[in-house]
Amino acid sequence: MLIVMKRGYMEEELQAVIREIEKVGYRPHLSRGVETTLVGAIGRGPTPELMEHFRALPGVAEVIPISKPWKLASLEVQPFPTVLEFPTGKTGGGHVMVAAGPCGVESRDQTLKAARYVKAHGAHMLRGGAFKPRTSPYAFQGLGVEGLKILAEAKRETGLPIVTEVLSPEQVELVAEHADVLQIGARNAQNFALLQAAGESGKPVLLKRGMSMTLEEFLMSAEYVLSRGNMRVILVERGIRTFEKATRFTLDVAAVPVLKSWTHLPVWIDPSHPAGKRDWVIPLALAGLAAGADGLIVETHPEPEKALSDAAQQLHEEEFAELMDKARRLVAALDKTLAAPVLG
Amino acid sequence: MLIVMKRGYMEEELQAVIREIEKVGYRPHLSRGVETTLVGAIGRGPTPELMEHFRALPGVAEVIPISKPWKLASLEVQPFPTVLEFPTGKTGGGHVMVAAGPCGVESRDQTLKAARYVKAHGAHMLRGGAFKPRTSPYAFQGLGVEGLKILAEAKRETGLPIVTEVLSPEQVELVAEHADVLQIGARNAQNFALLQAAGESGKPVLLKRGMSMTLEEFLMSAEYVLSRGNMRVILVERGIRTFEKATRFTLDVAAVPVLKSWTHLPVWIDPSHPAGKRDWVIPLALAGLAAGADGLIVETHPEPEKALSDAAQQLHEEEFAELMDKARRLVAALDKTLAAPVLG
Amino acid sequence: MLIVMKRGYMEEELQAVIREIEKVGYRPHLSRGVETTLVGAIGRGPTPELMEHFRALPGVAEVIPISKPWKLASLEVQPFPTVLEFPTGKTGGGHVMVAAGPCGVESRDQTLKAARYVKAHGAHMLRGGAFKPRTSPYAFQGLGVEGLKILAEAKRETGLPIVTEVLSPEQVELVAEHADVLQIGARNAQNFALLQAAGESGKPVLLKRGMSMTLEEFLMSAEYVLSRGNMRVILVERGIRTFEKATRFTLDVAAVPVLKSWTHLPVWIDPSHPAGKRDWVIPLALAGLAAGADGLIVETHPEPEKALSDAAQQLHEEEFAELMDKARRLVAALDKTLAAPVLG
Amino acid sequence: MLIVMKRGYMEEELQAVIREIEKVGYRPHLSRGVETTLVGAIGRGPTPELMEHFRALPGVAEVIPISKPWKLASLEVQPFPTVLEFPTGKTGGGHVMVAAGPCGVESRDQTLKAARYVKAHGAHMLRGGAFKPRTSPYAFQGLGVEGLKILAEAKRETGLPIVTEVLSPEQVELVAEHADVLQIGARNAQNFALLQAAGESGKPVLLKRGMSMTLEEFLMSAEYVLSRGNMRVILVERGIRTFEKATRFTLDVAAVPVLKSWTHLPVWIDPSHPAGKRDWVIPLALAGLAAGADGLIVETHPEPEKALSDAAQQLHEEEFAELMDKARRLVAALDKTLAAPVLG
Repeated sequence: MLIVMKRGYMEEELQAVIREIEKVGYRPHLSRGVETTLVGAIGRGPTPELMEHFRALPGVAEVIPISKPWKLASLEVQPFPTVLEFPTGKTGGGHVMVAAGPCGVESRDQTLKAARYVKAHGAHMLRGGAFKPRTSPYAFQGLGVEGLKILAEAKRETGLPIVTEVLSPEQVELVAEHADVLQIGARNAQNFALLQAAGESGKPVLLKRGMSMTLEEFLMSAEYVLSRGNMRVILVERGIRTFEKATRFTLDVAAVPVLKSWTHLPVWIDPSHPAGKRDWVIPLALAGLAAGADGLIVETHPEPEKALSDAAQQLHEEEFAELMDKARRLVAALDKTLAAPVLG
Repeated sequence: MLIVMKRGYMEEELQAVIREIEKVGYRPHLSRGVETTLVGAIGRGPTPELMEHFRALPGVAEVIPISKPWKLASLEVQPFPTVLEFPTGKTGGGHVMVAAGPCGVESRDQTLKAARYVKAHGAHMLRGGAFKPRTSPYAFQGLGVEGLKILAEAKRETGLPIVTEVLSPEQVELVAEHADVLQIGARNAQNFALLQAAGESGKPVLLKRGMSMTLEEFLMSAEYVLSRGNMRVILVERGIRTFEKATRFTLDVAAVPVLKSWTHLPVWIDPSHPAGKRDWVIPLALAGLAAGADGLIVETHPEPEKALSDAAQQLHEEEFAELMDKARRLVAALDKTLAAPVLG
Repeated sequence: MLIVMKRGYMEEELQAVIREIEKVGYRPHLSRGVETTLVGAIGRGPTPELMEHFRALPGVAEVIPISKPWKLASLEVQPFPTVLEFPTGKTGGGHVMVAAGPCGVESRDQTLKAARYVKAHGAHMLRGGAFKPRTSPYAFQGLGVEGLKILAEAKRETGLPIVTEVLSPEQVELVAEHADVLQIGARNAQNFALLQAAGESGKPVLLKRGMSMTLEEFLMSAEYVLSRGNMRVILVERGIRTFEKATRFTLDVAAVPVLKSWTHLPVWIDPSHPAGKRDWVIPLALAGLAAGADGLIVETHPEPEKALSDAAQQLHEEEFAELMDKARRLVAALDKTLAAPVLG
Repeated sequence: MLIVMKRGYMEEELQAVIREIEKVGYRPHLSRGVETTLVGAIGRGPTPELMEHFRALPGVAEVIPISKPWKLASLEVQPFPTVLEFPTGKTGGGHVMVAAGPCGVESRDQTLKAARYVKAHGAHMLRGGAFKPRTSPYAFQGLGVEGLKILAEAKRETGLPIVTEVLSPEQVELVAEHADVLQIGARNAQNFALLQAAGESGKPVLLKRGMSMTLEEFLMSAEYVLSRGNMRVILVERGIRTFEKATRFTLDVAAVPVLKSWTHLPVWIDPSHPAGKRDWVIPLALAGLAAGADGLIVETHPEPEKALSDAAQQLHEEEFAELMDKARRLVAALDKTLAAPVLG
């Protein structure tokens, strides 16, 4: 059972709840969040009477039975879609957003060029990796802090919020200084220490599905962030590992309707990594939107052939423009909104 | 190397080609088809000179180097999309078709009801299984010949062509008498004797991808049909086996753009089997169309809750109507055609 | 519920059982086998009273509740291991057998050479494909009937029984004339028409697991053979499709203990196809035996480098000898028997 | 190209190498390790002349071309097996070791009991989780520091070295104080910050394969540890994600011979997690040893039914004793050594 404290509860009320949990033989699990404070009461399934007992305690907002393995992410707890708002647009509840930019920040020039044209073609957010998780220790690992500064400059110039990856708990503070959204990559999708640190940062988190993660496990990873009181999580399907090798990963497009039948959180599609090849990115992006996705995160590069990573899958500017045009028509046909970015 | 004979070649020309193949140390592989006669010349990769030599023989239309494991299916052999025409509509080259109906033919009443409403909502073909391949020998195996007769009656009444499954080579003749399109199911996708028999029937073949078949292997199975001179094959992506169990299978929506970059054959989506659950069928169908599919094959039943097989995934009539409405809007947004069926 | 008739039941008793099934609203499913006659009574789960009612009818040996999806294969029906006996040895119940030989029968000389040395090193059965199922229609498809005759000659000379693949229902009679064991390959593991035809042949069947088949589905395919009254089925794990590409398939070695906890049928390992490479065949074979397999089916060729199929994975004679030596030591260490073949 | 510095090189020699790398247009990547100092020279593939040039510089021990994506792990760099020595025994090069103990450290009593009996039955190392990575944030997360202290006490009493999991870079120092071997779990197998921190600790690292990691990627993760100068890494195959759900994961037993054909590092098997069920642990353990594994890491608990995690798969004491007995016989039959632990 999960006990949600009221906003503005008093510390002594919280301590009384914890003592009461221990008194009835449960183990308390405290999560003090920026927006919410939760107390998990872990033990055998509670009786309705017991839940009623806790609901009546001072300072308690709600008591939720833990029937599903994920709690705060569930439609039981919040039966309407979460809508996240950014200066440039919204995602969730019928609003579709696009984050775009290069795989990695390679130079000031490359990043600013990309930022300018993705803004011109209607993207709402700039993506780009400053710290790159690479399978090989000998591969290009990103520009690091220098990359963060370039992203910050691109933001100042274009007004686009920044989403960039964070690789370890100790990096969270540094990255959060420059980024508007913290990205957690597929390889870290069950790096629980990192999920908790991101949860505590208070920044929105864009969480990619691990490449062999079930959708249930995906929501439980999101729950690690939520349970720290940070309710702003975007779930991203980016392809899973299967026997099929024509594509880099197999886009599990059904993840969109399945997740939406379980959770209120926005669900996005990354069409670039599953495609692995430029030619197949647009069809996958459109498939994701047709399945109901609330957003896209797409790789595009001013000169993809010269990219230091993911060269084969980053779109040229014209291809990105084509994607945005088709996406707008498709989203309109489905009575949803892919608005132009609001920019000062 | 594959030697394609001219239409109206003379038998003596063919025999001369075969003798020549043997003379240069290759093994001849003759496929006499309804539309095309092919002679494979199997051996080590041929020199350009050798190919030129065969190209010059009387009765020879073309000589194709076997660089890819599939030949007749490739865009090299035919660089424009195959368009299949049925009395009710077309598929391929920008034309989208829908085949719909119950999983299994269970009764005259059930099948006729379904046929009437799928026609009314705009489907171009009636699907329904008379012979059902079932994992368990103790499960309902279909009505058999009786089922074929019911389908034929539904065709007479509605004008919709029929697609139904054939399970073994010896059934091909019987099923071909009643059906307009022979369906070969996922479990038989590498039943080579069946593929050849279907190829020889001269009927269009709707071939489903095996559930752990690579896309390359899929085209090679299609090649078994094509190599018998039957060029009317529809490829259907119907979901693959992965670790994810929220859905029955994982729809590999990328199969659509990948196959279309390799082959001229029409590519369809079956959204019902991967979904496994009614709620997720429409999003998957739309995803398939957005990715560029030339058609859909969908399960719908007048009373799905009473269905003898696949009860959870068959659409109710209203849901099918909703699917058709959304599909039309989406296809139009992408500048393709989902025309109403042409009916007498 | 499954009604097993007594040996020597009278036809009128059987008919009475069937009438009774229909009377209580179930659908009868009759399987007259060589050894057993079964009547499935298909409907909603039966009450204990109803089962008792049928148990009391004349001619009825047993009534089995259909709790599991497979029936005759289950340890419920037969709680002790099936032991299959061949002139050269036994498999099951602690007896380990080895079938070995080339992937395909390519010539008289190649096959006889292989037969002689596999016998000399202790194999109990000769394997070799006369009809080869090939992914591509243009690949070598085997010598056909000529291959069967070569196998028969090898049997006459060495005394080794023959196991060879059958590809379609209409081939069953022909192949059964020459073979001692009918092999059904992975691509046909859900070719239900073929399974039934093999069941009716009365010959032992060596059934390979499909490459994306669950173990439950595997037993249900075996059930298609068993339900035709043919209880002599050997189950072969030969690797499944996964994302890992270092090996050709992923040997699911756990299939051995899992199947043995569910069924009385012998379970074998094919180490050649999952390895895909000669170097890894012996470790996989030993792993299978250590996990409890009742037999091996291994590819070996007098000159593997010249083989027309599977060249990379067929063992040289010396490697096969090494495998047999290590297998004998390992089987002995586990208190099981890998006896030398009994030969006249 | 990878430049390996001699032991006892001078700092100025190193700096000269780095300057030379930059001078010829490559990017230097310095890894100062406890045992080795490496300088990667990253750029386009070097010419033999260039490699010779660097080989001639003062302080340089060797220059290795980077033909494979992993370097220090490869048999090219070290063509003989790494043997790791612990006070109680050895692993690698024909020496087999067993680490055993409970999934989680739950209490002093439970852990000491387990330690005593695993020692008595011949294990060489005690395993037990103090920090538990759990899919759900609401599940038991381990006793933490308290758990480490209990493990240390068990070591003092039994003399068994300790292997326990570390979850984040900042935990490494704390865990390394109490543990003899740092375990990195499957979910962190591509947590590169953690791999590097473990590499820098100087402690042996037991690295589990990620559940959808290719064997190539696995070696590249090991390379993150090795490239920090820590050559003591044990690779553990623990099952991968596939469609098969009878077992918790699919043990990829072929990983053993494949890895051993690529790397000099010891390869172990974890039979507990793939089995997911007690009954199948022994067959999987024996399969792993028969395939050539250098060790086992096995879960066993004095009262598995009461375990707070993995209750179904932990062995009872008698089962663990049976496993050790069978393992000894099997290892002896294969001419390898599973020695009794050396204890004071």
